[in-house]
Amino acid sequence: MKSDFACPIPLGQYPKVVLAHGGGGTLMAQLIEKMFLPTFASPLLETRHDGAVLDIEPKKLAFTTDSYVVRPLFFPGGNIGNLAVNGTVNDLAMCGARPRYLSAGFILEEGLPMETLWRIVQSMKQAAEEAEVEIVTGDTKVVDRGKGDGVFINTAGIGIVEHHRRIEPASVKPGDKILLSGDLGRHGIAIMAVREGLGFETTIESDCAPVSGLVMALIEAGIEIHCMRDLACSGFRFPPR
Amino acid sequence: MKSDFACPIPLGQYPKVVLAHGGGGTLMAQLIEKMFLPTFASPLLETRHDGAVLDIEPKKLAFTTDSYVVRPLFFPGGNIGNLAVNGTVNDLAMCGARPRYLSAGFILEEGLPMETLWRIVQSMKQAAEEAEVEIVTGDTKVVDRGKGDGVFINTAGIGIVEHHRRIEPASVKPGDKILLSGDLGRHGIAIMAVREGLGFETTIESDCAPVSGLVMALIEAGIEIHCMRDLACSGFRFPPR
Repeated sequence: MKSDFACPIPLGQYPKVVLAHGGGGTLMAQLIEKMFLPTFASPLLETRHDGAVLDIEPKKLAFTTDSYVVRPLFFPGGNIGNLAVNGTVNDLAMCGARPRYLSAGFILEEGLPMETLWRIVQSMKQAAEEAEVEIVTGDTKVVDRGKGDGVFINTAGIGIVEHHRRIEPASVKPGDKILLSGDLGRHGIAIMAVREGLGFETTIESDCAPVSGLVMALIEAGIEIHCMRDLACSGFRFPPR
Repeated sequence: MKSDFACPIPLGQYPKVVLAHGGGGTLMAQLIEKMFLPTFASPLLETRHDGAVLDIEPKKLAFTTDSYVVRPLFFPGGNIGNLAVNGTVNDLAMCGARPRYLSAGFILEEGLPMETLWRIVQSMKQAAEEAEVEIVTGDTKVVDRGKGDGVFINTAGIGIVEHHRRIEPASVKPGDKILLSGDLGRHGIAIMAVREGLGFETTIESDCAPVSGLVMALIEAGIEIHCMRDLACSGFRFPPR
């Protein structure tokens, strides 16, 4: 692993998350200063305020949230980190909005390997860059060992609606054509295969990715869209079991 | 308990949260249709979309998030539900913004008594009304028994900044006066007292409440504010231990 990508928390001292990493003191400050701020590199995060103040003058905004509780944390084709970014990016795209800003709320279980958190956070950064969104505000909580499950991530997102159409479930009409952006159920099967030890001849990978580019292209092409749904990255479809 | 406020989920059938309440099927639909939509009663939630589309034309927005993992769920002066609303409302106020829209993300543990969830949700509704914010989008996940701790709630919030001042930590100067809105540490002691069984002669109650009205009054009065911090309802200060 390149030194650029080594976990910046002194792992000799803190190889695992401890309760004080959520306690508002020195260790939490270290986590924020060394891991989150440099990784997400947003001037808005740098203000270290209770929230981010956004300079936008839109007509309409989209606002969404999802919590991500996927197990295992790392699966073929993705992990909880890029899933948490892409899932919320895609929910904004489903509203016909251009995804712009994300929040990130971490609920960490005491004992989570710090290196695991680092890999997840790196993956979130990369996914945010690819989807052209900025993580501008966040929160970290640590719960007692046995009271969580490694890491849960909530992301909320704000997107800008640049058109005047009504893209929503209520607009669907009989006779509408259905477009699919990829294989139905691919993400779900990828997760189930690793959870249940299903043996396939080839590894099925999650297609976890942002679809906002595709959606913006449809809208810009003037195609009449009645409703869009995220069936792939949505946590709704694939709860832990 | 008045019948208006009885839990609308058939408790004979589903006295406790089961995994399918997060599974995207009939039981999840029931939870959303019978509990969340009627309680939060937002036309934006009624669209049942992946997110809410907001019709606002502000110059600046504030955006914040917090996860709430407080134990016990109910404590003198409040509970995790009104804390989750007031904490995020106050974080927006600390940005000098008028709180407007909240998201609510629930991570429920299998086995959570449904009645407990109902009481929490009712309390969120009441807190939202008092703080004059609308819960416009949400998400529910259910994790395996033993992989969570009853209920965690994430709220993200959007507020509108109606002025042109820079209210942020970087604006603080030596010589600034400090105003306190209440007793420092009251919420924390209220929680610690019930957690640790500390015996006081009188019950100390959390002062969990929205301070947005106070903050808006300060701003409208033209008082020069450099920075505001929420020291009371912020979960940062009171992680589980």
